[in-house]
Amino acid sequence: MQLPAPTVERLLDTWPVGRLATLGPDGQPHLVPIVFARQGGALWSPIDAKPKREGELARVRNLERDPRVALLLDRYAPDWSRLWWIRLEGRAEVVSARHPAGDPILREVVAALRTKYPQYRHTPLFRVEPVLIRIREEHRTSWCAGEAALEELRGA
Amino acid sequence: MQLPAPTVERLLDTWPVGRLATLGPDGQPHLVPIVFARQGGALWSPIDAKPKREGELARVRNLERDPRVALLLDRYAPDWSRLWWIRLEGRAEVVSARHPAGDPILREVVAALRTKYPQYRHTPLFRVEPVLIRIREEHRTSWCAGEAALEELRGA
Repeated sequence: MQLPAPTVERLLDTWPVGRLATLGPDGQPHLVPIVFARQGGALWSPIDAKPKREGELARVRNLERDPRVALLLDRYAPDWSRLWWIRLEGRAEVVSARHPAGDPILREVVAALRTKYPQYRHTPLFRVEPVLIRIREEHRTSWCAGEAALEELRGA
Repeated sequence: MQLPAPTVERLLDTWPVGRLATLGPDGQPHLVPIVFARQGGALWSPIDAKPKREGELARVRNLERDPRVALLLDRYAPDWSRLWWIRLEGRAEVVSARHPAGDPILREVVAALRTKYPQYRHTPLFRVEPVLIRIREEHRTSWCAGEAALEELRGA
C-alpha cells in the first residue's frame, strides 16, 4: 500500500533522517545517513560539523563524478504492521558558497535547517565554509505495511 | 571515531534493520530497508511475506544484473552525540531453494532469522518459495560520534 500523498509531503518536511546512496568511482553503491531540510522544491543536506571520519566526504566526491542518488526515509519498528518507507530517486549536486546569507535560497535553506534541527544551536551547521548537497527528486515511491502504519502516522 | 571491532560484530549480529543499496538497470542507486541475520560469514535477508508493493522485487532483479551492494546499519537519535553507523560494501546474490531444510546452511539461516525476529511467528518467512539475498562484505567502515555513543552501545 502506498502512503497518501499528503503524508509523504509531511514526512519529507519533518522526518529527521534519510539514508543517501551515491555511486563510487567504479559504480559501487555508497551509503551514508544524512539530515536534510526541504526548501524551494529540493532537499538540502549540509556537510555540517558533526564529527566525520578522516576525509570522509566520499559523498561529495561521488556526486561531483555522478549526480545520481537515491534517498530513503523509513521507519523501522519491531511491530511490522507499522513499517513504512519513502524512496526518492534523482540527482544531487554539491552547492558551496562562502556567504550563504548573500543568496536568498541558501539563506532560506539555512533557516529551514536551523528550524528543523535545534541541534544546530550547538553543532556548527558548516565546517570551514558552507557546503550543502541539493537533492532533486525525479521519481518517488512509497510503501506502508497497512492501516496500523497510517494510523500511527496520523497521530504523529 | 571508528566503532570498536567487537561492537561492530555484535551490532551485525543483533541490529534489526539495514538499508540496502543496489544498482538499477541504468546504474541508478536503489534503496530498500531490509531485515537480515548473520550466518556462515554472510548476511542473509529473506524475501519474506511482509506486504510488498506490486511486483516490488527490484532488489532481486537488480542483483541478478549487478551484484554490487552497500548496506548501512545506523542509529539516528535527536542527541547527535549518540550517532553511529556501520557501512558494508560488497556483493550479494539471490539464493532460492524450494526446500531450504534440505540444505544445512539454509536451515541454519532460517533458524537464525526466526531467533532474531520473533515477528516470524506471525509473518511468513517466505512467500511462495524460499528466496533470500546473501550479502558478502568486501569492505567495512564504521563511525561513531564519540564517547556518548560508545557508552550507550556498551549499555545496550
